[in-house]
Amino acid sequence: MKTTIGFIGLGNLGTPIAKNLIAAGYHLQVYNRTLSKIDELDQTSITKCGSPAEAAKSVNFIITVLANDAVLRQTVVGDEGILKTLPLNAIHISMSTIAPDTAEELADLHKQAGNSYLASPVFGRPDAAAAKMLWTCISGEAEVKEAAKPILECTSREVIDFGEKVGSANVVKISGNFMIQASMEMMAEAYTMAEKFGVDRGIVAEFFGNTLFNAPIFKSYGKAIAEKKYEPVGFTTELGYKDASLVLKLSQQSKTPMPFANIIHNRLLVTIAKGRTGADWAEAFGKGVTDDAGV
Amino acid sequence: MKTTIGFIGLGNLGTPIAKNLIAAGYHLQVYNRTLSKIDELDQTSITKCGSPAEAAKSVNFIITVLANDAVLRQTVVGDEGILKTLPLNAIHISMSTIAPDTAEELADLHKQAGNSYLASPVFGRPDAAAAKMLWTCISGEAEVKEAAKPILECTSREVIDFGEKVGSANVVKISGNFMIQASMEMMAEAYTMAEKFGVDRGIVAEFFGNTLFNAPIFKSYGKAIAEKKYEPVGFTTELGYKDASLVLKLSQQSKTPMPFANIIHNRLLVTIAKGRTGADWAEAFGKGVTDDAGV
Amino acid sequence: MKTTIGFIGLGNLGTPIAKNLIAAGYHLQVYNRTLSKIDELDQTSITKCGSPAEAAKSVNFIITVLANDAVLRQTVVGDEGILKTLPLNAIHISMSTIAPDTAEELADLHKQAGNSYLASPVFGRPDAAAAKMLWTCISGEAEVKEAAKPILECTSREVIDFGEKVGSANVVKISGNFMIQASMEMMAEAYTMAEKFGVDRGIVAEFFGNTLFNAPIFKSYGKAIAEKKYEPVGFTTELGYKDASLVLKLSQQSKTPMPFANIIHNRLLVTIAKGRTGADWAEAFGKGVTDDAGV
Amino acid sequence: MKTTIGFIGLGNLGTPIAKNLIAAGYHLQVYNRTLSKIDELDQTSITKCGSPAEAAKSVNFIITVLANDAVLRQTVVGDEGILKTLPLNAIHISMSTIAPDTAEELADLHKQAGNSYLASPVFGRPDAAAAKMLWTCISGEAEVKEAAKPILECTSREVIDFGEKVGSANVVKISGNFMIQASMEMMAEAYTMAEKFGVDRGIVAEFFGNTLFNAPIFKSYGKAIAEKKYEPVGFTTELGYKDASLVLKLSQQSKTPMPFANIIHNRLLVTIAKGRTGADWAEAFGKGVTDDAGV
Repeated sequence: MKTTIGFIGLGNLGTPIAKNLIAAGYHLQVYNRTLSKIDELDQTSITKCGSPAEAAKSVNFIITVLANDAVLRQTVVGDEGILKTLPLNAIHISMSTIAPDTAEELADLHKQAGNSYLASPVFGRPDAAAAKMLWTCISGEAEVKEAAKPILECTSREVIDFGEKVGSANVVKISGNFMIQASMEMMAEAYTMAEKFGVDRGIVAEFFGNTLFNAPIFKSYGKAIAEKKYEPVGFTTELGYKDASLVLKLSQQSKTPMPFANIIHNRLLVTIAKGRTGADWAEAFGKGVTDDAGV
Repeated sequence: MKTTIGFIGLGNLGTPIAKNLIAAGYHLQVYNRTLSKIDELDQTSITKCGSPAEAAKSVNFIITVLANDAVLRQTVVGDEGILKTLPLNAIHISMSTIAPDTAEELADLHKQAGNSYLASPVFGRPDAAAAKMLWTCISGEAEVKEAAKPILECTSREVIDFGEKVGSANVVKISGNFMIQASMEMMAEAYTMAEKFGVDRGIVAEFFGNTLFNAPIFKSYGKAIAEKKYEPVGFTTELGYKDASLVLKLSQQSKTPMPFANIIHNRLLVTIAKGRTGADWAEAFGKGVTDDAGV
Repeated sequence: MKTTIGFIGLGNLGTPIAKNLIAAGYHLQVYNRTLSKIDELDQTSITKCGSPAEAAKSVNFIITVLANDAVLRQTVVGDEGILKTLPLNAIHISMSTIAPDTAEELADLHKQAGNSYLASPVFGRPDAAAAKMLWTCISGEAEVKEAAKPILECTSREVIDFGEKVGSANVVKISGNFMIQASMEMMAEAYTMAEKFGVDRGIVAEFFGNTLFNAPIFKSYGKAIAEKKYEPVGFTTELGYKDASLVLKLSQQSKTPMPFANIIHNRLLVTIAKGRTGADWAEAFGKGVTDDAGV
Repeated sequence: MKTTIGFIGLGNLGTPIAKNLIAAGYHLQVYNRTLSKIDELDQTSITKCGSPAEAAKSVNFIITVLANDAVLRQTVVGDEGILKTLPLNAIHISMSTIAPDTAEELADLHKQAGNSYLASPVFGRPDAAAAKMLWTCISGEAEVKEAAKPILECTSREVIDFGEKVGSANVVKISGNFMIQASMEMMAEAYTMAEKFGVDRGIVAEFFGNTLFNAPIFKSYGKAIAEKKYEPVGFTTELGYKDASLVLKLSQQSKTPMPFANIIHNRLLVTIAKGRTGADWAEAFGKGVTDDAGV
């Protein structure tokens, strides 16, 4: 007999994660704001729910993969939020990229309700999720992490533990997105400068991606930026901007001046201010720099 | 019978390169401003020279590994410069990190003298040079590159060709150093912010170095920055600042606004202005950020 | 018979404003968190109150001069807030430097309560307030502005109308503080660079303050920055940082990239991160730049 | 009988200065690259010259008002440069905005030739020059300054002495242009942000120009930026960029990190990279910010 898990959030990342869990033999109680997205899943393995509260009913685990702090908070504490129904001792596995203080606030609310919150944001694009190749960062109480691990492993290449403090995994996740964005900006600047000296952007990007910078970030985004090919859209500028705003918030909260974070924030803001919403975040950096350089 | 090559510049990088050439069977006519450095080499394989001109006499190839544009220019065109003696059709293999316009100026002078200049800056720290693991970027005339390759391969992991335009390899080299410096700044910002949230810098650095950023730059400098361990010094802040100034110059020449390059330049300038010359460039970034953040 | 006005907030600015109103013949119902500050006022012209609600009882006008958005919001909507008692048709004259959306939120709440909110932030340091030389920026409904003007004129050099939209005066106030901070940063950079070339900072500051930049900001702060004399403290780094954070917030809300605002924000954040709270904001800029320049 | 002065450089600023000198009773030996410009002057008061050397022949004073360091250097040391003919003990009054080390280099050359160099850059736009309202900054030897003063006073509102060190007046001039550019950037950011909140740019600019920032810079450029009216062109973006590059050079030479200078430099560089040469420098700032903000 299959174990049932609650699941909320069928976005670009949530959908392949849900499929992985189904493939691993779980039955899902699924809620998604846009109902049609639920039709993509194997219907024999899911139960459609009309609210977060319904998805959280009678389960030991509920997973959320949502867009931002506000949506997640509403999903937890709203009138039909999961706190209304989540059983005692159940665990909320929260995969969204949110601020650490939101994580801590929600963890407190879960504690008061007699259940638990696990910060478990993930690194990886949708295709990595589909291939069960996400890196999942977790932080929270030891026994909660222990209990959630088998579920997380169904969709992760590796589960990395960042300790007991509940917001820590979120700090790591936001740091990582900052580093990805900084990598795109640096490549955009370097490759555009090279281009203006008559050096082929593509050859430069390939060289660095195969040598000093032979890491996934520099290979995939490096190619996009070098070739100025920003489609298909993998991750939108707006989501990137949300992350950049979170970095600024963390810079302020922690009193850490982060000049690169300011450049990144403004680069994305220019793209949004110009109305190019929906563009891939790599375009915000790549085209932002080439526009400024007049090429 | 051994082939003789001229060799000028026994710095941190020049010395292991010279040793590799000796190991490969070449005899070297060596000039170095500081004579004592020459004693480190196998004396049976070298001839000590009293000037660049002497080192360039009767050879088909002369290699220079020098600190900056001014020193290289003086070595080529000075009263005892290599142009005074370098034979017709000989090749000057120039490994220094210099501006592309300096490379083009020197290439013209060599052409007028009836011989050739090959831009061949290298990526790698001294230990990589000792292990014959440098990445050597070359640009110049096809037959010159062809002729120089066997020599370059004695000391390189790979020789990458960036075309006929003589300054191109220099543009790539400067771009790369910019990207390395940007990587250090981004790690310093991210790891310091994480630290101030109570997350262990070392664990964060290890995580990124093993996953999204599993490239040499992020592993080696990531560890130094995470652990705030900036010794032994591998590459000084002053040399890093020279590179950062070259990036700004290229940004201006090519009309490419490069905001990250400005942050980097100022980070190094603060360290120099405070009199901390001689420190490793990773310290300029790492300690620069932690100082600003009060930790 | 004297008219009675409610008055909340006896800080550096609130105290001289209260004194001006007393001098103009008003009787004040005063509330201040720190009671001892009330003793500075002429006791025959005031009534001490134990809460904002008490200060707002039976008056046609209540003035607030508070530190930030959170304190003001609490003063309005708290359990003992002014909304509990402020009569119908009364006007809340709000002089604090706060975000425009806070102003709009409070204006809505007042409207629902049957009374009115007038944004009226002021420019000027405490000595300007004492000399009735403040510039008061107002925005709100026409009849509310009309009604409040005689009171505002008791303490202002000029009352400037920025229209009906309630947050506009706050936008202007925050813009002005941004421009003051930018002026300090620019002077700190210029005068330090001049100093390092052996040019006397004081003479340079005096020259600019008497010629191209002969405006109050450049004279007063220019002298402080040139002489590196940052005492007595007129406006703390923390208050400056609050303003810088408001600017960033407005930059984000309005989708206006403001690179100068980022530099300013980080300059103040460095000072705070290093624990130099309580310093004058001119020191954050002046000493921030000289520290970075090693002088 | 009229005293004769050499005069080189009839640009936007040189022409009104020449006219002032003629009005004051001097006879000018004029050289200008573009001959037609000489026709604008009263022909009875001038002698047309075919080279700098000719203009410098037999005079006690020669004035140069040129575009940049390279042109000035060529004018002094070129084959037909003024050093070829300038009499012993004559004085070269150099009004161009150039780097202090260029000034010092030229001062040395003049000294070797037995005559003198006086740094005397000026502040003021062409209309100020026409009205004899320039601020002239001087530095050099006391007796040289003394001798030149009567001539400078014919075209200045005030002559300000910055000491004996020959480059000091140039440092002050470059600092001032930096502060003017920073003022334009800050206004552009503030007024655009205000606009996006629905506040009238013009009213905001007028308010600040009449109150806290009631200095010429904020009134004139403030109006242009507020009204987005960048014509007629008073000072081109390219000249502004030359100044911004000089500031960066001075920042490097003096080891003074100047983050505002970087922002300014890039703002102008974007405009130039996009091919909008010939635009007023106020447009580079004003339109640069509104473009980025999408308005």
